[in-house]
Amino acid sequence: MPKFKLDDVDHKILDLLIDNTRIPFTDIAKKLEISAGTVHVRVKKMEEAGIITGSSLQVDYKKLGYSFIAYVGVFIFKTSQTQFVLERISEIPFVTVAHVTTGKFNIFCKIRARDTAHAKDVIYQIDDIEGVSRTETMISMEESINDKKRLLHSIFNEI
Amino acid sequence: MPKFKLDDVDHKILDLLIDNTRIPFTDIAKKLEISAGTVHVRVKKMEEAGIITGSSLQVDYKKLGYSFIAYVGVFIFKTSQTQFVLERISEIPFVTVAHVTTGKFNIFCKIRARDTAHAKDVIYQIDDIEGVSRTETMISMEESINDKKRLLHSIFNEI
Amino acid sequence: MPKFKLDDVDHKILDLLIDNTRIPFTDIAKKLEISAGTVHVRVKKMEEAGIITGSSLQVDYKKLGYSFIAYVGVFIFKTSQTQFVLERISEIPFVTVAHVTTGKFNIFCKIRARDTAHAKDVIYQIDDIEGVSRTETMISMEESINDKKRLLHSIFNEI
Amino acid sequence: MPKFKLDDVDHKILDLLIDNTRIPFTDIAKKLEISAGTVHVRVKKMEEAGIITGSSLQVDYKKLGYSFIAYVGVFIFKTSQTQFVLERISEIPFVTVAHVTTGKFNIFCKIRARDTAHAKDVIYQIDDIEGVSRTETMISMEESINDKKRLLHSIFNEI
Amino acid sequence: MPKFKLDDVDHKILDLLIDNTRIPFTDIAKKLEISAGTVHVRVKKMEEAGIITGSSLQVDYKKLGYSFIAYVGVFIFKTSQTQFVLERISEIPFVTVAHVTTGKFNIFCKIRARDTAHAKDVIYQIDDIEGVSRTETMISMEESINDKKRLLHSIFNEI
Amino acid sequence: MPKFKLDDVDHKILDLLIDNTRIPFTDIAKKLEISAGTVHVRVKKMEEAGIITGSSLQVDYKKLGYSFIAYVGVFIFKTSQTQFVLERISEIPFVTVAHVTTGKFNIFCKIRARDTAHAKDVIYQIDDIEGVSRTETMISMEESINDKKRLLHSIFNEI
Amino acid sequence: MPKFKLDDVDHKILDLLIDNTRIPFTDIAKKLEISAGTVHVRVKKMEEAGIITGSSLQVDYKKLGYSFIAYVGVFIFKTSQTQFVLERISEIPFVTVAHVTTGKFNIFCKIRARDTAHAKDVIYQIDDIEGVSRTETMISMEESINDKKRLLHSIFNEI
Amino acid sequence: MPKFKLDDVDHKILDLLIDNTRIPFTDIAKKLEISAGTVHVRVKKMEEAGIITGSSLQVDYKKLGYSFIAYVGVFIFKTSQTQFVLERISEIPFVTVAHVTTGKFNIFCKIRARDTAHAKDVIYQIDDIEGVSRTETMISMEESINDKKRLLHSIFNEI
Repeated sequence: MPKFKLDDVDHKILDLLIDNTRIPFTDIAKKLEISAGTVHVRVKKMEEAGIITGSSLQVDYKKLGYSFIAYVGVFIFKTSQTQFVLERISEIPFVTVAHVTTGKFNIFCKIRARDTAHAKDVIYQIDDIEGVSRTETMISMEESINDKKRLLHSIFNEI
Repeated sequence: MPKFKLDDVDHKILDLLIDNTRIPFTDIAKKLEISAGTVHVRVKKMEEAGIITGSSLQVDYKKLGYSFIAYVGVFIFKTSQTQFVLERISEIPFVTVAHVTTGKFNIFCKIRARDTAHAKDVIYQIDDIEGVSRTETMISMEESINDKKRLLHSIFNEI
Repeated sequence: MPKFKLDDVDHKILDLLIDNTRIPFTDIAKKLEISAGTVHVRVKKMEEAGIITGSSLQVDYKKLGYSFIAYVGVFIFKTSQTQFVLERISEIPFVTVAHVTTGKFNIFCKIRARDTAHAKDVIYQIDDIEGVSRTETMISMEESINDKKRLLHSIFNEI
Repeated sequence: MPKFKLDDVDHKILDLLIDNTRIPFTDIAKKLEISAGTVHVRVKKMEEAGIITGSSLQVDYKKLGYSFIAYVGVFIFKTSQTQFVLERISEIPFVTVAHVTTGKFNIFCKIRARDTAHAKDVIYQIDDIEGVSRTETMISMEESINDKKRLLHSIFNEI
Repeated sequence: MPKFKLDDVDHKILDLLIDNTRIPFTDIAKKLEISAGTVHVRVKKMEEAGIITGSSLQVDYKKLGYSFIAYVGVFIFKTSQTQFVLERISEIPFVTVAHVTTGKFNIFCKIRARDTAHAKDVIYQIDDIEGVSRTETMISMEESINDKKRLLHSIFNEI
Repeated sequence: MPKFKLDDVDHKILDLLIDNTRIPFTDIAKKLEISAGTVHVRVKKMEEAGIITGSSLQVDYKKLGYSFIAYVGVFIFKTSQTQFVLERISEIPFVTVAHVTTGKFNIFCKIRARDTAHAKDVIYQIDDIEGVSRTETMISMEESINDKKRLLHSIFNEI
Repeated sequence: MPKFKLDDVDHKILDLLIDNTRIPFTDIAKKLEISAGTVHVRVKKMEEAGIITGSSLQVDYKKLGYSFIAYVGVFIFKTSQTQFVLERISEIPFVTVAHVTTGKFNIFCKIRARDTAHAKDVIYQIDDIEGVSRTETMISMEESINDKKRLLHSIFNEI
Repeated sequence: MPKFKLDDVDHKILDLLIDNTRIPFTDIAKKLEISAGTVHVRVKKMEEAGIITGSSLQVDYKKLGYSFIAYVGVFIFKTSQTQFVLERISEIPFVTVAHVTTGKFNIFCKIRARDTAHAKDVIYQIDDIEGVSRTETMISMEESINDKKRLLHSIFNEI
């Protein structure tokens, strides 16, 4: 549960940063009619409090030739190997997300690949990790929503 | 498949931006021993080519009280309703990702919520969309990897 | 999350009550070398704080002719009917536990019955509730553990 | 099948005990207009016949910080290990119920935990028992019914 | 639970009848060194007690051109229709066994047919019964055991 | 495919035998207005042709205390062990039917047992056969149809 | 079961045709040291007997931009609609094979498409056929074997 | 994606070849009012470009006694064995198609056999390949569509 309190100014700064992380602090200051120094102090405070942990570049994966997305469920022989397997998985750059789950699968991953043949290679790399017994793959036909901005606006409006 | 060619300078700029979207162009220029103007021109060109589409803020969801992650598989009565259902789903800010799939589920979503009770509410909102027949949920015990930087470095090294 | 603090005396009282809810307060007092009044005050405080909500009789179901246990997963047509269906289920005394789940089933119940034929009747009563589309049953061959005392000792030792 | 006969007085005593195991025998005597000695004799008789085996404290698990409930299906390598695995499971206090089943799972457990992370730890403890090959978990979103009083009234009314 | 007692003579008579229902009573009498009248009385008694309900002819289905065996799981829209559906199923002579189940299926049948095409017709007849929503079929590759004599000997030896 | 031809007389004899295997040949002769010798010759011919292979006693399993029926799907480590496992299974008298299947299961059995506890023992005997990796059980709530007479009449009418 | 007999000459002709349907009859004649007229007569006879029903062109689907293969399981509301649905499916040229099945699916199809997006369109066309309730898709990562020549050689060698 | 361009003449030639691979070039020439030499050149060009890879004989499998079709899903112990297993599978002539898949199965095959018993033998041959852990079979009741001509016409019309 969050331990800090964000005031209205923090909130407005975050609202602007969520939509464009590269917006200059002077622009934020002008829009909010506060000083650029204040913006700087507030952002720094939120970084130190661990609210803001960084920023990431958004790209068009289709334009880059990476239009194939699949979810891979991983079965492990013994759960004590989970950490070891996750470390091996994290060495495969085409795995962008991995969760520990306790339902049908032990680990559940999202992969991005160039095409069917490339996806097969990536899945085989996962399959060949020591400790992995089997994988099951579900292929995405279309990524219709990939947007955490709505969530972030919702979180910061609510706090 | 990508239609443009990125040269070595573009590549080095991207390498720096991937790790920190907020890095000033003057810092990039200094590091790469080129002019800030060149950096500006190259980034603009990559934005216009649609390689770079934006940037997003990275936050610590646990610190913000949103530690509950689940994947929700959605069954729809008729696939002709898929687009309609996706639009209703996109109005729920707690759904951050949604895919059209053609395997067991019609739509596959990722949700972030505060806790079990909140997740139940979000899932019920999806269940109650007109056209949705049933949902099945898989709960994440731990998000171990959520990092597209490795993928982006890999893509830009390869091009 | 618990908002009150239980001290060592509370803890020792609970330890004794967990094993035997009918133990007289004077016996507790003697064992802990405190006054019976103190025991009374402490138990009342824990009841008011909502830690202790009651007590239940433990019986031998086999001796009573109720040796058949099954778990019944219930599928509902629309999740908005969940509350209505739960109310109907709660009118069937042979259902002792029911959970709202969001995985494969909408509701997951535990039933106790006299034998196969009786279990069939109970399951048919659930099946016939308006809003229920289907049920799936898993039959217990033996209830090997049914004991919350170990959990309660563990919780109170930990707090 | 029950071998003893409970008369109307036994029945009325049980009715009162089911609702409150801590009710003093003198209160029962007063309500039923019989002597406290009779109450004592009857309860003793039912304890000796094995109808009443004890009593258990009811607590509010949410208030105690234990709001996470899951059902865990356990697969065992060879069924001859079932008894051994059950003994190891019974050493984990967070497992409150365990059944031998012969359907999809070999053993089916109910666990109570503090939160997702704690549940993961408990499930891993089960997974790491020698002889266990895999587990599958279903998470409860809400425990809507947990009440054996209706069943007990029904049983004692029927006998 | 059986309410009658079979003595040693009954047992020996049953042993002979299980292996050959057409054995003449005089042969039984000779083998057991008792009178034919006694055999007659005992068999009559076991028929009246409902132990023996009849006899059935054993044939070689392969020789008769009926070598295709399948098990068909039937899903019904509402369990209240179970009795109605069973009556319709009992009008299809190729269904030789049908059970009410409460797991995945509502009704579980065994069918014997001439070949794949005939089996398809039989399954379609079941599918087309009012109230049936779907069926799932498992095909037998070989009937390796079909013998209740071992069970009957075992039962009568045990009683 | 059947290689012999049954004429109308054979057919009428079979019709009578299907309903009662113990009917004396003289009764058949009288009903069909043929000689007892003819009945004898025809039955012998059908036995030699392998149409009739024997007869079996029909009993009321419930009255005999065997009211529990289950279907057990058996998974084997390697299919080359199928014959070996079937031989072990055939030593368990409570297994009355067993099929080789190639779908989900390797072998599919029907068992009859006294009650839940007895069924558990039988299933464990199957589980403990060398070569068996796992079993899955489906329990019958009621055997509604168990009648091959309709099939036999249908076959003999058709030939 | 085959009703005609192929002699050694037929067999050798088929062996040559299986490998190359376009081989001129004069080449076959030369290789087998028989007259071209004989070849003509024999092929005609096998066409009239319905052994040979035609020939099909083999192409490299990858080169033609059709590298995406999927298997689609189709669930139908009522099996009586199967024929109607099959006719609608046969109007979609991208479905190259369709089977009536009676297991999990009612109809099972093979489709060839250009890519993920095209496959989605084809699957949606199937989904939108009146009478289809749902589909489930399995995607091929690589078609490793697609060769009926080995089977045909085997059949003709055996006859 | 296709790298060559087919003109209208190529297209018309293909249209004729798809329907009958054995059509003489002179017939094609006459129908299209071009010279036989042109037909020859164009077909050769398409063969060299790898569009046309050969032709195959179409037969009536039912007439040949091969009416049993099944799809077999193969599970492999480690995906690194996939290539080895595929080579063993390709030695079984009754397997006409095999795909590498990454969903539930590792390899997915189509088999044609004479009957149930023969299919069992073929499946056992697959089961017994080193590296194969299990197989699951789905049996076709009727092959309703097996026609790539519609696809080929569609492809060539579209290019």
